Amino acid sequence: MIGTLYIVSAPSGAGKTSLVKALVDTVPGLSISVSHTTRPRRDGERDGIDYHFVGAETFRDMIAAGDFLEHAEVFGNAYGTAISAVQRQLTAGTDVILEIDWQGAQQVRQAMPECVSIFVLPPSRQELDRRLRERGKDPEEVIARRMREAVNEMSHYDEYDYLVVNDAFGHALDELVSIVRTRRLRLVAQRERLAGTLADLLA
Amino acid sequence: MIGTLYIVSAPSGAGKTSLVKALVDTVPGLSISVSHTTRPRRDGERDGIDYHFVGAETFRDMIAAGDFLEHAEVFGNAYGTAISAVQRQLTAGTDVILEIDWQGAQQVRQAMPECVSIFVLPPSRQELDRRLRERGKDPEEVIARRMREAVNEMSHYDEYDYLVVNDAFGHALDELVSIVRTRRLRLVAQRERLAGTLADLLA
Repeated sequence: MIGTLYIVSAPSGAGKTSLVKALVDTVPGLSISVSHTTRPRRDGERDGIDYHFVGAETFRDMIAAGDFLEHAEVFGNAYGTAISAVQRQLTAGTDVILEIDWQGAQQVRQAMPECVSIFVLPPSRQELDRRLRERGKDPEEVIARRMREAVNEMSHYDEYDYLVVNDAFGHALDELVSIVRTRRLRLVAQRERLAGTLADLLA
Repeated sequence: MIGTLYIVSAPSGAGKTSLVKALVDTVPGLSISVSHTTRPRRDGERDGIDYHFVGAETFRDMIAAGDFLEHAEVFGNAYGTAISAVQRQLTAGTDVILEIDWQGAQQVRQAMPECVSIFVLPPSRQELDRRLRERGKDPEEVIARRMREAVNEMSHYDEYDYLVVNDAFGHALDELVSIVRTRRLRLVAQRERLAGTLADLLA
């Protein structure tokens, strides 16, 4: 059975990255796609694990060759999801998660309409404001810009298949786990996974 | 938001009744539809809770009046699901479960194509045989008849949206819970449930 491609989007401060990490730690057969980027590697980041770090020229060549499922430029750096690795994993029956924004999500839906998309929301404006401030002692205009970007991202919530509110972390994680598990219980997936059991039961 | 109508079918020995009972005890806003039947009340059964016990004439009148979403005769007794109670609960936003066989499921899908149907399977033929025997010291021909009926019921597994194997009870219960939870996370449901949160976040 070919795997399912999941898209998870969220504004900064929704807790998407921690949730997705906990999700792949909880559910077997599910992995996060590693993006390509032209941005410089930060301390602690590992090439091929956190990102595939490539030069601007390589990235342009990959775009020209149609290697990306989606790509975007954010603050002067390019980010993209290579088709080949995603396809290899899906074909091997692994479910794959893309952590991308609404623009990337639109590109992926065009290319792979059978994908399942999830939008993670913070529980309230007040809590989002608190989480955007917790990152450090930033000036008010930086906080205000982050909030505008978050609201812009959230304004696309209705393009997604599922909405999950990250109020209590464990509860939001349970909801993500449910979505992935339920998809695996569909007739089309189970008929293949349970072929032996069904043959035994109906003999 | 209108509730979801779930159909759960299974052969005898799959553990459907215990699973469905545990499911409604676990998930709020979900209830089991109480069927009408012409079969005599057994010790411990309560009218209006386990079944609505009615006479054959009343049952015939209800069929004539189009009161049933589905009905069937099993070993000379009639069983049916009244439309009115189901509609009342769904309209109130409660999810409703019907525990019915494949024939009832076909009738309900015709009438309410938006229903979600789940088939519960035993883990193996050997385990099913063991469970069908555990009911008492019945003659072999009775066991054989039960097995034929179970196989007949199971032969309709591919008419259902989801397949759940009841190997470990807790695991099968988790899977049923996931299906109900996931349906509530769909955009169409969450948009309505989270209307206030979304207005606050996007203000």
